[in-house]
Amino acid sequence: MSSSMNVFAKLTTGYDESLSRSGVSGMRMAERLSELSEIGKTTEGGVNRPGFSFEEKQAKQLVMSWMEEAGLAVTVDGAGNVIGRMAGVTEGKAICSGSHVDSVPNGGNFDGPLGVIAALEVAEAWKETGIQPEKPYEVIIFSDEEGSRFGAGLTGSHAMAGHLEEKNPSELKDFDGKSFETVMDEYGSSLEAVWEAKRDMSEIELFVELHIEQGKLLEKNGLSVGAVKGIAGPVWMNVTFEGEAGHAGNTPMDDRRDSLVAASHFIHAIASLPRKFSDTAVATIGKLNVYPNGINVIPQKVELTVDIRDIHKDKRDALVESIIGAAQVSASVHNVEVECQQTLTVDPLLIPEKLLSDMKESIEQFGMEPMELMSGAGHDSMVLGREVPAAMLFVQSKKGISHNPEEWTDLNDCVLAVHVLKAFIEKQMTV
Amino acid sequence: MSSSMNVFAKLTTGYDESLSRSGVSGMRMAERLSELSEIGKTTEGGVNRPGFSFEEKQAKQLVMSWMEEAGLAVTVDGAGNVIGRMAGVTEGKAICSGSHVDSVPNGGNFDGPLGVIAALEVAEAWKETGIQPEKPYEVIIFSDEEGSRFGAGLTGSHAMAGHLEEKNPSELKDFDGKSFETVMDEYGSSLEAVWEAKRDMSEIELFVELHIEQGKLLEKNGLSVGAVKGIAGPVWMNVTFEGEAGHAGNTPMDDRRDSLVAASHFIHAIASLPRKFSDTAVATIGKLNVYPNGINVIPQKVELTVDIRDIHKDKRDALVESIIGAAQVSASVHNVEVECQQTLTVDPLLIPEKLLSDMKESIEQFGMEPMELMSGAGHDSMVLGREVPAAMLFVQSKKGISHNPEEWTDLNDCVLAVHVLKAFIEKQMTV
Repeated sequence: MSSSMNVFAKLTTGYDESLSRSGVSGMRMAERLSELSEIGKTTEGGVNRPGFSFEEKQAKQLVMSWMEEAGLAVTVDGAGNVIGRMAGVTEGKAICSGSHVDSVPNGGNFDGPLGVIAALEVAEAWKETGIQPEKPYEVIIFSDEEGSRFGAGLTGSHAMAGHLEEKNPSELKDFDGKSFETVMDEYGSSLEAVWEAKRDMSEIELFVELHIEQGKLLEKNGLSVGAVKGIAGPVWMNVTFEGEAGHAGNTPMDDRRDSLVAASHFIHAIASLPRKFSDTAVATIGKLNVYPNGINVIPQKVELTVDIRDIHKDKRDALVESIIGAAQVSASVHNVEVECQQTLTVDPLLIPEKLLSDMKESIEQFGMEPMELMSGAGHDSMVLGREVPAAMLFVQSKKGISHNPEEWTDLNDCVLAVHVLKAFIEKQMTV
Repeated sequence: MSSSMNVFAKLTTGYDESLSRSGVSGMRMAERLSELSEIGKTTEGGVNRPGFSFEEKQAKQLVMSWMEEAGLAVTVDGAGNVIGRMAGVTEGKAICSGSHVDSVPNGGNFDGPLGVIAALEVAEAWKETGIQPEKPYEVIIFSDEEGSRFGAGLTGSHAMAGHLEEKNPSELKDFDGKSFETVMDEYGSSLEAVWEAKRDMSEIELFVELHIEQGKLLEKNGLSVGAVKGIAGPVWMNVTFEGEAGHAGNTPMDDRRDSLVAASHFIHAIASLPRKFSDTAVATIGKLNVYPNGINVIPQKVELTVDIRDIHKDKRDALVESIIGAAQVSASVHNVEVECQQTLTVDPLLIPEKLLSDMKESIEQFGMEPMELMSGAGHDSMVLGREVPAAMLFVQSKKGISHNPEEWTDLNDCVLAVHVLKAFIEKQMTV
C-alpha cells in the first residue's frame, strides 16, 4: 500500500467489519489512530513527537477530549501523565491500562498510540454496551516514554512509580541543551511538580499495556497477538580489544596482534552462548569501530558494544559473566588486551504467573493460539511492574519494523487485540 | 632520544666509526640524511614532500649537487626522474641503484632517501678509493613513489619502465583537484615529456634498491640487513555481508540474519588460511564498517576490505579464491548475502635466484646471517623488475615504524647496508 495513502484509508482497507462487536469499533480506532498521525507528521508519513514537546502535548489533549466524551474523569499529574478514570461499581484499587503518545524522531504511528487508543476503546465499549466495571478503571498516557528528548526515557512512568531519582532529572539536558527544569517550566509544569507526580501505588491493583511487538515472531507464526511473559532488562557493555598496528604487507601472520581477529573470534563465539543459558536470552554486537581502519593497516584497536538481555535476571547475569570470560579467552588466544565495561544495567521483569495465564486464556477465548513472547524492549509497564503487578499484550507488527514511518499493524489485529485486552481486564474486574 | 634532537646528532650518537672504511663514510651519510630531513620538515620532525612538489624538487636538486660533486653525469627525464651516471671501464648495459625522495604526509626520513644516499655512497666510495667500475653505474631518483599526490604512486618508475598507460595519467587529479597535466606543467615538464620518459630498458642490466624494512623481522632477529626474496603483489577486495536489521531485544537468536556474526566467522576463518598456501602469504582485514552501527540494532550490513599478498602469484591467487570461498561459506552458514569485489591486483615479483644468492653472499661477506625477507609493500624495484632483473636489500627499521616521523634506522645499520650493497654491485660488475 502506498505510504502517501492516509493512515485511515490504509487501516480500513481490508478491515473485517464483523470484528466490530461488543461495543468495540474498528472504525473509531482507525479514525483516532489517523487523527493522532497528523500531529507532528513528517514528510515520510512518520511522526516527530518528542517527550514534553508541543506535539506530544497536542496529542495528549486530543486523547483527553476523547476521554471526556467517553465520560472519564481526566486529570494530569505534574509529570504530564494523563489519567482518565472511570468509576467502578465499588471503589478501591484501580485496574489501569495505557501507553504513551510521544515518538522517536520520524517514528511510527502505532508504538505507544495503539496502547492508549486500545485502553480507551475498552472504556468506549463498556459505555456503548451499558456496562460499569466492578472496579475503577484508568486509561493512562505516560509522558516521554521514548527518551528521544533527554536520551533517557520512561520519564512519566518513573515519576508516577516514584523512581525519578534514578533518572537524575537535575542533570538531564535535552537535544537543545535545555535543562530538565527549563523544559518542565516551558511545558507548563515545574521540577517540583514532577516529583509530586509520585503516586501512592497502593491505589493501583494492576497495570496492563497493549503494545506492538516490534519483532517478527507473531507475523512468522501467523498470529495477531501474543502474551508477554517477561520484559528483558538489558545489560550494555563496552568491550575494547587492543593489539598492535602494523603494515598489512610486512607483518607475517605469526607475528601479529590483530585486534579485529580477536574481536571476530569473540563475536562469533558469543553468538552461540545465549541459548546455553536460556531460550529467551539474547546478545547482540550492534556497534563496532576499527582503528585506524585503513585498508593496509593491521587493526590496532576495536571498540564494540554488547547488548545482553533476558527476562530471567540470574540467567542474564550468568550470561554476562560468560561473555566477559569469552572476551578474555579471545584476547588471550590472539595475544591482545581486552577491557570490558558495563554501561547500563536494567533489571528484567517477569509477568506474574496468574496474569500470564489470564492473558493466555483471554487470547484462547477468541480462538487464537496463546503464544508466549518476551519483550526485548523496555516499556512503561516494566517501570510500573516494579511496584504493582503488570501484564502486557503484544500485537503483530508488519515485518517487525518499528521506530520508523514504515511501522504498521493491521486494523484487524488491532481490534482483535482490543477484544483480548477487554476480556483480560474484565477477568481482573471479577477477581 | 628526543625527537627535538636533530637528525644528524641522533644518527651519529653511538656510531661505530670503524664502519667507515673502503671509502664509505657514515658521517657523510648522516650529513646528507640530515640535510634532506630539513626539506619539507614538519613540526613533529617528519617531512612533507609530495610527488612533484616544490619540496620534492628541492630534495632532488640537493642530491643532484652531490652527484655532480661525485663526478656523475646528471640528467633529468620528462617524468622528473634523476639519473646520475658514472662511466664504466667498458660501455654497455648499466647497473642501477636508487629509490625516491618524495614522502607521505608527515612521513619519515629514511623511506626513500636512504636508498638514494646509499646508492650515491657506493659511487662516492669508488671515487675515494680510485675505482672506476667495469660497467656504467647509475644512481636513480624516481619521482612520486609514495602516491600521496594522486593516490597512485610509483609514477616515475612506471614512466621509465613504459607502464604509464596503466596509471591513466590523464584521469588523475591531485589533492588540490589539479589534473596530472597541470601538475606536470607547473613542475616544469609536460604530459608529453612524461610519456617520453619511457626508456629503452635494454640499456639497464639490473636494478637494485636498498630500502628500510618497514617491518619488525630484522629487529626481532637482531639483524642489520636482509635479502629480499620477493615483493608481494597485493590483491584488494571489498567484501559486503548483508543480513537483516532487527531490534536487539525482540529478535530471538535463532531468528537472526546478523551480518556482523557472519563477517566475524569469515575474519576469524581466514586468519589461519594464508599459512596453508605459503609461508610468505598474508591476508589482512584492515577496514570494517558496520551499518547502521547502533548499540541495540542487529547489524544489517558489514563492509570490509581484504588485503591479500604473497610473492608467489599462483599461491596468492589460490589464496584469493580460497578467501572468496570462505566468505561464501560464512554467509551461507549465517543465512546472509555476500558480495566480493576485487579492486586492485598487482603482480608479485620474485627476485631472480642468482641475484638473491649474490645478495645473501654479500651479506655473509660481512659476517652477518643472510636472512631472506619478503617485501609486503610495493617499491620502484617492483616496477623496474617487470622489465629487467631487480634485487632489494632491506635495512632494519626501529619497531617497524614507517610513514611516520618516528621512522628510524640506526646509522650503523645504514653503513653496514651500504657495504653489502657495494659488494653486491661489485659482484655484478664482474659478471
